[in-house]
Amino acid sequence: MTQAKYDVLGIGNAIFDVLVRTDEAFLARHGMTKGGMALIDETRAASIYRDMGPATEMSGGSAANTIVGIANFGARAAYVGKVKDDQIGQLYTHDIRAAGVAFETAAASGGPATGCCYILVTPDGERTMNTYLGAAQELMPADIDAAQIAASAIVYLEGYLWDPKNAKEAFVKAATIAHGAGRQVALTLSDSFCIDRYRDEFLDLMRKGTVDLVFANEAELHSLYQTSDFDTALTQLRNDVRLGVVTRSEKGCVVATKDAVATVPAFGIDKLVDTTGAGDMFAAGFLFGLVRNAGHENAGRLGALAAAEVIQHIGARPQVPLTELAQQNGLPI
Amino acid sequence: MTQAKYDVLGIGNAIFDVLVRTDEAFLARHGMTKGGMALIDETRAASIYRDMGPATEMSGGSAANTIVGIANFGARAAYVGKVKDDQIGQLYTHDIRAAGVAFETAAASGGPATGCCYILVTPDGERTMNTYLGAAQELMPADIDAAQIAASAIVYLEGYLWDPKNAKEAFVKAATIAHGAGRQVALTLSDSFCIDRYRDEFLDLMRKGTVDLVFANEAELHSLYQTSDFDTALTQLRNDVRLGVVTRSEKGCVVATKDAVATVPAFGIDKLVDTTGAGDMFAAGFLFGLVRNAGHENAGRLGALAAAEVIQHIGARPQVPLTELAQQNGLPI
Repeated sequence: MTQAKYDVLGIGNAIFDVLVRTDEAFLARHGMTKGGMALIDETRAASIYRDMGPATEMSGGSAANTIVGIANFGARAAYVGKVKDDQIGQLYTHDIRAAGVAFETAAASGGPATGCCYILVTPDGERTMNTYLGAAQELMPADIDAAQIAASAIVYLEGYLWDPKNAKEAFVKAATIAHGAGRQVALTLSDSFCIDRYRDEFLDLMRKGTVDLVFANEAELHSLYQTSDFDTALTQLRNDVRLGVVTRSEKGCVVATKDAVATVPAFGIDKLVDTTGAGDMFAAGFLFGLVRNAGHENAGRLGALAAAEVIQHIGARPQVPLTELAQQNGLPI
Repeated sequence: MTQAKYDVLGIGNAIFDVLVRTDEAFLARHGMTKGGMALIDETRAASIYRDMGPATEMSGGSAANTIVGIANFGARAAYVGKVKDDQIGQLYTHDIRAAGVAFETAAASGGPATGCCYILVTPDGERTMNTYLGAAQELMPADIDAAQIAASAIVYLEGYLWDPKNAKEAFVKAATIAHGAGRQVALTLSDSFCIDRYRDEFLDLMRKGTVDLVFANEAELHSLYQTSDFDTALTQLRNDVRLGVVTRSEKGCVVATKDAVATVPAFGIDKLVDTTGAGDMFAAGFLFGLVRNAGHENAGRLGALAAAEVIQHIGARPQVPLTELAQQNGLPI
C-alpha cells in the first residue's frame, strides 16, 4: 500500500445552501417535518422559495461540509460531487477549492441546475432542510477516478447518495476500489428519513463490510434498528460494523467497537444559533483525529469541538480556523 | 399632493455581495485601498475571486440595503435597480421582495451578468469592496416609472449611480419627477473615492437643489470639500444643502441644517465584526425617523441603532427585526 495522497476523500451530493431564519408556522404551513431533510421537486421548490424570507447563501452538502472541515483542520482532502456549470455551480466550485479541497469532478454542461437546499432555521436553532437535487443527480460511476480513490486513506460517503439514481453505483464502485487498495470506507447515515427509505441496503453495506466506519446520530441509530432503546441499538451497531460513532447532541458521543465503548462529552457553547452542519462537522473532527492517529477519544473530542463551532453561527461550514480552536482547547492536531 | 404610496423609494446599483474574511496581506497583494470601493472589470474580478477564500453570499447594493432596512422598520418601501435574469439575479429579486420591498424593475435578458461585489472583511472589521457592476450598468431612464416616483414621499439615491453610464440620467429624471410632485430627494455620497470622481457634479446637485438631504460619512465630507477640518466642511455642507447628516463611526452623527446642528452619540456594541452596510443602515434608520416625523435627533438615534445592529455580524442587511430592537431601546417607531 503506497502512501496516500489524500487523507480523506468525500463523495456526496453537491448542494448550495439557501439559509433563512423562520418560525414554526412556516414549517407547519408548508407541511415540513421539523429537523428532517425532504427531497423536493422544482414546483415545490418554487412554492417554498416564494414564501421564504430574505436568505443568506453558501456552499453546502453533507459530505462536502465534512471535507471542508477536514481541510480546515489541516489534512489533505478531496471531494467528488456534481454541480452544473452555472453561476451557482461556479460559486460552489470556488468555495470548495478555496477551502483547500481537491475538487475535479466535471461540472454538468446541460440538464438540471446546480442542486440547492432551502434550510429553514427556527428560533430554537433547529434546521429543517428541503433539497432540490438538481445536477447532483448526474453523479455517475464514471465520475469516480480509480487512481484518486486508491490514493485516499479514507473514503467518506454520505447516506444521501442513495437518493439520486446513479450515485449508489458510484458509491459502491468507490468502496470497492478503496478496499482493493487497502483503504478504509466510512459512511454517515445522514438522516433518519433517509434510513427509512434504504434501511436494508444500509444494513447490507455494513454487514457485508462495504463500509468500515459508520456515523449516526441517535435518531438515525434508532431508525436503523427500529428500536427506541439506545443500548439495544448500540449493541446491534457494534455487531454490524467495525467502528460505529453515535452523536447524541448535548450528551456528547459514543465511539463503539466490538471490544470497547467510549463516551466523549459535548463541548459547551454560549448560544445555539443553527444546528446546520453539526453532524457534518463532528465527522470532520473525528475523521481528522483518525487521520492523525489521535485515538478514538481524542477523535471524538475533535468532532465535538468542530460541531460546537458550527452550531454557534448560521451555516454549515466553519467560520474560524479549526486548527487554532483545537490548539486553544489543548487537543492534538 | 396626494398621499404617498411609498414612504421611501431607493434607486441604486443592484449588487450581489460575496463576502469573505481575509487578512491585510490579501489587500496588499491585490493592491486594494482598504475601506474603499473600487470598480473592477471581469478580468480583475476573476483574478481576485481565484485568490479569495470560501465566501458567504447575500443580496446587497448600498441603496437596496437601506431600503430593506426601512422596510424592516415597518415603512412602505420600493426599489429600482437592474439585475440580469440569471440565477444570481433571481436570488436578488427574491431577497428584496421577501424583505417586503416593492421591486418591479425589469431584469435584463441579455448583456452582462448580475453585478457582484467581492467584500473583503479584515480582522479589524473593516470592509474593502470590489464591484463588478455587470447588469447594474443597464439601468436606464426608461426604468424610472414616473407614477411610482411621484407616489413616493422620499426618493433616495446613491452616489454610486454616477458610475454606470445611464444611471445618472435616470437619477436626474427621478429627482425631477419627485420635486414636480412635491416630494423630497435624498442622496448618499457613498464613498470618498466616488466623490473624487464626481465632486463637482455632486456639489452641483446640492447647490441647485436637485437633492434636499445629503448623507455623508466623515471621510466623504472631507473629500467633498477637500479639507481636513471638520467644522469648515460642516459649515460648507450647511450652506449647500437643506439637511446634511454626517456619520462619524463611534463618535455618532451630526445632523445639520442652516439653523441648527445636533449631535447624536453612537450606540454601544459588543463586538465589531463587519462594517459592511453601516452607512446604509444608518440611512435606513434616519429616513425611517423622518418618515415617522420623529425629529432629527430621534432619526439619528434610529440610524445609530440600525448601524450598530449590522456591524455586529457578517453582511450588510439586518438579521433581526429592527422594529423590536427600536422598541427595546425605547425609540419611537
